Amino acid sequence: MTLLSDITSLEAVAALAETLPAADAGAINAATERQNSLTKPMGALGRLEELAIFMAGWQETDRPSIKRAQAVVFAGNHGVCAQGVNPFPQEVTAQMVANFEHGGAAINQLCRANGADLSVIAIDLDTPTNDITQGAAMTEAETLDAMRRGAEAVDADASVLVLGEMGIGNSTIAAALAMAAFGGDAKDWVGRGTGSDDAGVNRKVDAISRACAANADASGLALLSAVGGREQAAICGAVLQARALRIPVILDGFICTAATAPLFAADPRFLDHCVVGHVSREPGHARLLDALNKQPVLSLDMALGEGSGAAVALGILRSALECHNGMATFAEAGVSDG
Amino acid sequence: MTLLSDITSLEAVAALAETLPAADAGAINAATERQNSLTKPMGALGRLEELAIFMAGWQETDRPSIKRAQAVVFAGNHGVCAQGVNPFPQEVTAQMVANFEHGGAAINQLCRANGADLSVIAIDLDTPTNDITQGAAMTEAETLDAMRRGAEAVDADASVLVLGEMGIGNSTIAAALAMAAFGGDAKDWVGRGTGSDDAGVNRKVDAISRACAANADASGLALLSAVGGREQAAICGAVLQARALRIPVILDGFICTAATAPLFAADPRFLDHCVVGHVSREPGHARLLDALNKQPVLSLDMALGEGSGAAVALGILRSALECHNGMATFAEAGVSDG
Repeated sequence: MTLLSDITSLEAVAALAETLPAADAGAINAATERQNSLTKPMGALGRLEELAIFMAGWQETDRPSIKRAQAVVFAGNHGVCAQGVNPFPQEVTAQMVANFEHGGAAINQLCRANGADLSVIAIDLDTPTNDITQGAAMTEAETLDAMRRGAEAVDADASVLVLGEMGIGNSTIAAALAMAAFGGDAKDWVGRGTGSDDAGVNRKVDAISRACAANADASGLALLSAVGGREQAAICGAVLQARALRIPVILDGFICTAATAPLFAADPRFLDHCVVGHVSREPGHARLLDALNKQPVLSLDMALGEGSGAAVALGILRSALECHNGMATFAEAGVSDG
Repeated sequence: MTLLSDITSLEAVAALAETLPAADAGAINAATERQNSLTKPMGALGRLEELAIFMAGWQETDRPSIKRAQAVVFAGNHGVCAQGVNPFPQEVTAQMVANFEHGGAAINQLCRANGADLSVIAIDLDTPTNDITQGAAMTEAETLDAMRRGAEAVDADASVLVLGEMGIGNSTIAAALAMAAFGGDAKDWVGRGTGSDDAGVNRKVDAISRACAANADASGLALLSAVGGREQAAICGAVLQARALRIPVILDGFICTAATAPLFAADPRFLDHCVVGHVSREPGHARLLDALNKQPVLSLDMALGEGSGAAVALGILRSALECHNGMATFAEAGVSDG
């Protein structure tokens, strides 16, 4: 049983915004007070302090911790590849899933280095979504099914959830989701993705413009069905399930963040328990983070996906919590407090 | 015996620039080739790729690794505190050294979280340097002595060296070093340090202007004696010793980076084996990094010192090397290379 098990419409999913838990103000205040008592000038740990306090609010304790970090990579395939938007063949999605399963991808190394347990969920790779330039990517039922797959992947024991994706063509899907949710010109949202040249970028711009025109009547969560994909819907399902369980989420780069744009469009509160691990080299990501009012933890010029930037950010979160829980207070250490 | 054991003048130290080892071009090429064969779009790991290749060049192998990470925090006291430049009393330097020794400071937690062995070297805390507004901080002999203390602290077995500092008043020393090395107005280099208010900032600007005027004839490594301090000289000594041993260095924030400005002024090549772990909230740091032509690894709005930002960056370096050494190549994984 997950939050989404009995839900049969996207409208009912959107209505969850009214009932999902919020960050605990008491824990936030207590964690802030603790930070201000530690042997450092007030605020000197910057984002590390913010991250510790953020964790406190969702874990409902002034001493948040990571007992288990779970990373999940969702994979899907996309009909929009018919528009020649990607230099890699669609078979690479399944090949990379196999690479994840055999431990050879970047995300495997980054999960090991930063202490996350990795699961990979490939969703119907043999059945790409419809080409979004021709209409909706998925039916509402298909979208809900993929969301449920995402929700089911979340382990109730996780202290934090790292999310990532793999899907040839899905930087085009990400740009379409961002444009459909936040407007602007297609070229504002399009980057080189996985190695596109100028002609490839132009094909993406054209495809995204046509996809948004073909799906102009969609809004809110229905954007997932219109210009999304299965791994995008699964990410949204995982974000919602994590929220129901009060598990903070680390989102990855442009594609993973754009996957959540329909949730934000439905209700911005849906993303309150999410931090964005890094800002990607894809130029649309910084623009998207502005629209979502999110500050990335890292900026390492990465553009890989798979959850790679989120997994690296998990290490920063660990550093934040080690300081929060392990440092002495001014009183304990006998240090004069200026 | 260290690189500096038999050296009796700063001029002789500066001359080392001609004889110290350089990064190995063959290892850099081999590591770059390996990066380009791994299962990811070329360059998609951004700074992680750069860091792995940087390590390869200094460790002279296409497969660089971290067998042991050493962190050293140097502490010193400063006569310029007589000018009222700091809201904390000078006793706090020794109190914080005790806090480091008892494991209660941020750097202790960050070294544990990121896998570094921490040493703390307090240098003559009972004998602050001279007030730099009145003339030189130290004699050449005192400077060389502190540099030797820094060099002696470096473990020949270290795979990477994380450097940090503690010294009440030393954000004023850092600004003076930066201004003396790179010019500009005092107010360009001055921030709030450890919690200064507007009046405190004005006192710092005034003190730095007077210090640079009082030491206007100093240049190159002699800047360390003129407007530096013992922990700054020790950092320079450690940087040089690490270079002799081909150990890459992670510098910390504004104060630690500014400590190396005299080395850069003497010869920019002295810092080729150093990366800067983070850009501090202190506004002078970004300006200083521009002058040194260094890109920070992290930007986390931190302003603590102690090596804290460098220790967090060590975790990023570990992630970089895990990817470099652990990922499958396209050929190994059977993934189509676009």
